Amino acid sequence: MTLNREVHLMSRPSGRPVPEDFALVTRPIPSPEPGQVVVRNLFMSLDPGTRLRMEDLGLPIPAFALGRPMTGDAIGEVVESAAPGLRPGDLVRHPHAWRDYAVAEAADFRPVDRDAYPSPSHHLNSGLIAYVGMVEIAAVRPGDTVYVSSAAGAVGGLAGQIARLKGASRVVGSAGSPAKAEFVTGVLGFDAAYDRHSATRPRDLAPGGVDVYFDNVGGSGLEDAIDAMNPHGRIVLCGAMERQSGGGDQGPRNLLAVIGKRLTLRGFTAFDHPGVAPRFAEEFGAWVRNGEIVLHETVVDGLENGVTALLAQLDGAYVGKVVLRP
Amino acid sequence: MTLNREVHLMSRPSGRPVPEDFALVTRPIPSPEPGQVVVRNLFMSLDPGTRLRMEDLGLPIPAFALGRPMTGDAIGEVVESAAPGLRPGDLVRHPHAWRDYAVAEAADFRPVDRDAYPSPSHHLNSGLIAYVGMVEIAAVRPGDTVYVSSAAGAVGGLAGQIARLKGASRVVGSAGSPAKAEFVTGVLGFDAAYDRHSATRPRDLAPGGVDVYFDNVGGSGLEDAIDAMNPHGRIVLCGAMERQSGGGDQGPRNLLAVIGKRLTLRGFTAFDHPGVAPRFAEEFGAWVRNGEIVLHETVVDGLENGVTALLAQLDGAYVGKVVLRP
Repeated sequence: MTLNREVHLMSRPSGRPVPEDFALVTRPIPSPEPGQVVVRNLFMSLDPGTRLRMEDLGLPIPAFALGRPMTGDAIGEVVESAAPGLRPGDLVRHPHAWRDYAVAEAADFRPVDRDAYPSPSHHLNSGLIAYVGMVEIAAVRPGDTVYVSSAAGAVGGLAGQIARLKGASRVVGSAGSPAKAEFVTGVLGFDAAYDRHSATRPRDLAPGGVDVYFDNVGGSGLEDAIDAMNPHGRIVLCGAMERQSGGGDQGPRNLLAVIGKRLTLRGFTAFDHPGVAPRFAEEFGAWVRNGEIVLHETVVDGLENGVTALLAQLDGAYVGKVVLRP
Repeated sequence: MTLNREVHLMSRPSGRPVPEDFALVTRPIPSPEPGQVVVRNLFMSLDPGTRLRMEDLGLPIPAFALGRPMTGDAIGEVVESAAPGLRPGDLVRHPHAWRDYAVAEAADFRPVDRDAYPSPSHHLNSGLIAYVGMVEIAAVRPGDTVYVSSAAGAVGGLAGQIARLKGASRVVGSAGSPAKAEFVTGVLGFDAAYDRHSATRPRDLAPGGVDVYFDNVGGSGLEDAIDAMNPHGRIVLCGAMERQSGGGDQGPRNLLAVIGKRLTLRGFTAFDHPGVAPRFAEEFGAWVRNGEIVLHETVVDGLENGVTALLAQLDGAYVGKVVLRP
């Protein structure tokens, strides 16, 4: 009998999570009941936002249960099926990450096209959330100056590239180190980027002002961006790295400027915009096929290394998308 | 020769302004040059937002110059005209408040209808900004639950009444004292209101959640409102009493909830929406004529009392619109 390893959340961290908040649990794989399938996970998405679900923050997305496997985006291959419509060998996307094998109702597993991307891991790309935020929420327009924080991250890196492809005239970013800032300009093709620990501020890289700010950090980073916005600028709130990494809990203190400049701030999640998915798949897929967009990926091997990698990610260790190969 | 009294800003306050930041200066009234008119001010609007213009906050609306009269909404009567189109006796609205007589180019003065309201002071009502915020920015809809802070104030009181007239099913407010909260329900007809210094919070008065929040306070009040919002709720940022009265400088720390609930926050000013003015004039005028809306007013007499009244207003001394009769 093959065993299944699962990563469980054992206690709710306050501030930065520690390895002791998690446990690697080994159990038998249950046999699928009628209507269920067994999927061997090939890749799982490592996301800073996972941190948010470790606490009960009263958000619409429920917190992880304690003593149970965490969840998250994964891509896997059906190995056993007791459901019509899914057969062994099918490649599927699903939310049952943080385990070797996922056993659940067939409806949880969405078949994906093996030929859509060079690697199955690419199905975990953060393009949809970047696209929804930049195209639907910010409504980026030709000529806009766009600023993206956490621009070396999976979402931010794509958000900036999408802005450029949609006609933004200047795309600038901030990142967590000088090396990451170089990655943002050198690999991802942003016009300029800076280390957010330096004295540089968005206003310095966008002297004509910022029309669209794609916020992945919150806190003082949001405050600096508000300071650089042009009148009627649009800010999309996508993430809160400062909070996610257990840092400050500070709100932007310059809301007077939000009034004076008539800014719009909108929080969003990708799953509120299901109608965008087909348009995204077509447009984004073409950009990837034509080499117009860089899908940069870091692969971490071993489910047993998942928690270490997640904590390292919260500390800013990686660039691009981070996936775990169990 | 008649003399003109002017209230000048003499120094930039940090925190709460003090009487020594201002001076009452007496000067001759200049004769109008060709194209200019002389207007005797009948009423001037006292607005907490005046505080913002005493500092150079880098906002699009410039700060007051030091050693010069402050400006602000006023209503007056033409007493001398060297311009075609304006004649002595005409009632005009204009931005040259804080002085007995205004002398400026005719283009600064907009004739208003003497019969539109029972008193000329009513032309200074805050209806347009309340209407733009509630109808244009928040897009209040029938069935919405609406929460308004500073609901006993000139803008907040009208914003809540407009929401009700536009079909909101529940309208609640907060105000700066128990007596003001009683005014908000008893006189303005809100469904419920609370003293913001009490332990009550918006969530308590709107157990089904808030769809639209009209923010006049910023800071911790905004944080409490975010906590009470329903998913996809709309927040309009109109004022920042906490900051204006020299209080805290704190931003809302719960921006994660803005993301999780997919909220929209929009700062606005009324003058960005000139196209709304005719529709506002028609609809709001009818509400006033039909007695469907309460225009509550406090009149302070004497230009020499203007600064004292403004400081008292920042301390929360008044309910409704406050006007100064020089």
